[in-house]
Amino acid sequence: MEYIEHLSVEKFILYLLIILVFAKLFGRLAERIGQPSVLGELLAGVVLSASVLPIIPSTEGMVGYDVFHLLAEIGVVLLLFEIGLETRLVDLIKVGPVSVLVALVGVVLPFVMGYYSIIYFQQFSILSLEAEMIGLVAIVTGATLTATSVGITARVLADLDQLHTKEARIVLTAAIIDDVLGLIILGVISGIVSSFEPGTAGTVEITFSSVAFVTAKAFGFLAVSIFIGRIIAPRIFGFLARVDKSNLVWIMGIAFCLVYSYCSNLFSLAPIVGAFAAGLVLRETDQFKTIEHGIKPVSHFFAPVFFVMVGAAVDVSVFNPFVSENIMVISVALILFVVAVIAKYASGYVVYEKGVRKSIIGVGMIPRGEVGLIFAKIGLVYGVFKTDLFSAITAMVILTTFIVPPLLKWMFESQKKERKLVEEAVWQQSRS
Amino acid sequence: MEYIEHLSVEKFILYLLIILVFAKLFGRLAERIGQPSVLGELLAGVVLSASVLPIIPSTEGMVGYDVFHLLAEIGVVLLLFEIGLETRLVDLIKVGPVSVLVALVGVVLPFVMGYYSIIYFQQFSILSLEAEMIGLVAIVTGATLTATSVGITARVLADLDQLHTKEARIVLTAAIIDDVLGLIILGVISGIVSSFEPGTAGTVEITFSSVAFVTAKAFGFLAVSIFIGRIIAPRIFGFLARVDKSNLVWIMGIAFCLVYSYCSNLFSLAPIVGAFAAGLVLRETDQFKTIEHGIKPVSHFFAPVFFVMVGAAVDVSVFNPFVSENIMVISVALILFVVAVIAKYASGYVVYEKGVRKSIIGVGMIPRGEVGLIFAKIGLVYGVFKTDLFSAITAMVILTTFIVPPLLKWMFESQKKERKLVEEAVWQQSRS
Repeated sequence: MEYIEHLSVEKFILYLLIILVFAKLFGRLAERIGQPSVLGELLAGVVLSASVLPIIPSTEGMVGYDVFHLLAEIGVVLLLFEIGLETRLVDLIKVGPVSVLVALVGVVLPFVMGYYSIIYFQQFSILSLEAEMIGLVAIVTGATLTATSVGITARVLADLDQLHTKEARIVLTAAIIDDVLGLIILGVISGIVSSFEPGTAGTVEITFSSVAFVTAKAFGFLAVSIFIGRIIAPRIFGFLARVDKSNLVWIMGIAFCLVYSYCSNLFSLAPIVGAFAAGLVLRETDQFKTIEHGIKPVSHFFAPVFFVMVGAAVDVSVFNPFVSENIMVISVALILFVVAVIAKYASGYVVYEKGVRKSIIGVGMIPRGEVGLIFAKIGLVYGVFKTDLFSAITAMVILTTFIVPPLLKWMFESQKKERKLVEEAVWQQSRS
Repeated sequence: MEYIEHLSVEKFILYLLIILVFAKLFGRLAERIGQPSVLGELLAGVVLSASVLPIIPSTEGMVGYDVFHLLAEIGVVLLLFEIGLETRLVDLIKVGPVSVLVALVGVVLPFVMGYYSIIYFQQFSILSLEAEMIGLVAIVTGATLTATSVGITARVLADLDQLHTKEARIVLTAAIIDDVLGLIILGVISGIVSSFEPGTAGTVEITFSSVAFVTAKAFGFLAVSIFIGRIIAPRIFGFLARVDKSNLVWIMGIAFCLVYSYCSNLFSLAPIVGAFAAGLVLRETDQFKTIEHGIKPVSHFFAPVFFVMVGAAVDVSVFNPFVSENIMVISVALILFVVAVIAKYASGYVVYEKGVRKSIIGVGMIPRGEVGLIFAKIGLVYGVFKTDLFSAITAMVILTTFIVPPLLKWMFESQKKERKLVEEAVWQQSRS
């Protein structure tokens, strides 16, 4: 047998400690300067990455990397399960045409703009793009731009105490639909990408039928699993709740989520797709509060590991402006960022109702998060992206997360000022 | 670089799912037949072990074993942290002489009887015991017999609704002291054992000074860390609670626990010793309820992994009675079980107060659990125990856990009957 260097218990405890402390510290610092804590967790990862302080095992091959990679995976699976648990299938179905329009435009426009950005980059020989796989790179890049992060948006709106506004409701509903669209895109992308073997470039061919098949498989799995789940889950969890008052219900909730994750993997979908579907299904059981209450701390424990590991995958050295090639990467990051902002901002302007501030909806849709980073990670893992494009995309995600909280704050404040001016004008008129 | 086979995300999800479901299923089945759920989790591990259904990676060298071994370690660290959080240092200090006596006798007697059982086994050439390391084997075996499992005892007493009785209070107090004595013994044992190199048998020499040094180090670390912790922890956690109302406090509680675990490892103590000390320290902060509330689900998620992995380490094939050598192992298990029962039962008879049912206290002290299994595991990991003795000890622990709930139930019921008889007699007398 070969000698395999295992991670010792001592080192494991130390790494876990460092990840938790840095994640919370940077998360808090981010909050202190008005940013969402997830941004801090990503930056904590950047600081702990192999390219800055090489403390934690942040790249493939380092002793213990696989352990933290698996913990990160459980983290994002539980996060999507939690988001699913907070989402009512009814709300997804009876959602107004406005939100559907915002979501659709907010997915299609960034995708198309992202796709053509890559075509543009290739024409001008920016980045190390191989001609024969440009289509695949363009598709995955487009995908990274599509998904609004519900978590970040909701968190920011809650922090600004604006969850009750009409704009907030439209943004949230659109973001939820957007998330489902994103999951379908994820299914399509992970199906296409997993059929791509690194080193066999040139054989990649995206046909309509392959996309249709993957889409049908994704839809089929989601539809069937949700349909079956909605029939059996209430019985299973009703029975479990009668049998046991303590922890059985929510731990079996996690088990249910793991079953869906494993099955979605069998259908060449990402584990998080199944986790989200499991959440949607369990949302309809009488026990969803118990499940949500139980998994929240477990998810809070694991999720930072995911964000730190994502941040740690950023190779900071590509941002060194004193290396001439990096200027290209930085430019790409900025171009993608501008594309990401414009495309989502525009989606707010499809709202046809009067009295709704379209710009707030547009800005509310801007933040990208988990899902975008997952696309980028998939692209990296399957060799579709080189580190340069991956780093540029991660920077784009970080920048979209950065820009939204101050922008939203400023917009709601200026809205308040405008209202005051209108009220004063009305009052002046009534006096005269 | 060598090719290292990593555990895939898919397999990881599957193993985790199987462990959680089997742990909960067997835990429930155990509860249904009136046994504590921890017993079911151990049995789930036995069923999933390499020697029964070779499903999960249960032995060193199997792909993914290291990952689940580390998760198990976090599980037991969090469990001891939780027990520490439920233990008041004041209660440990101001505890009545009765409980101290029970605890002391309940530690010394099983240790001495366990020690001499091994000497006896060697004299009659039972088990594969090497003469030159017989002292070490005898000491670790004695240690496995010392620690009453607070969790199991408390759980059983709560299930029988007897936590309010005087017997219950004495058992619980004694069990807590016993636990601390157990942790000191654990410190001593892990210090002695970790200085023992497998393959260098013959050089092992247990001197008084080495024991004294390890003891002093263990006491010193515990005393200093608790002293310093009690000064700084209330300030740190008071500050954290002012800064953040959500999850910062309890996640930093886990970080505090990991710091203590890591440091206790630096002092050649087991990580769980530090975890318990961290719990004791944080029990004195105003935030201990918040911390306990937050870590409970995380601990409930990880702890079954520990018990399942411990159960999975049992090599069932040694219990096959059709293999002649195994009859020895089974005999050893039964002898150790009888020793374990008698030694703890006797500790109840040092109670000098009248009106207290000594037999209930004696039986209440019988169940061994986590700590005994940890000693056994340490013995196995460091090569002090062969699989046969390890399996025999695990069987002993399982048997002590098995026997107590029905015995206690039967005793409280017979006590009730006796009281009724006395009351009737008094009533008869008052009538005549």
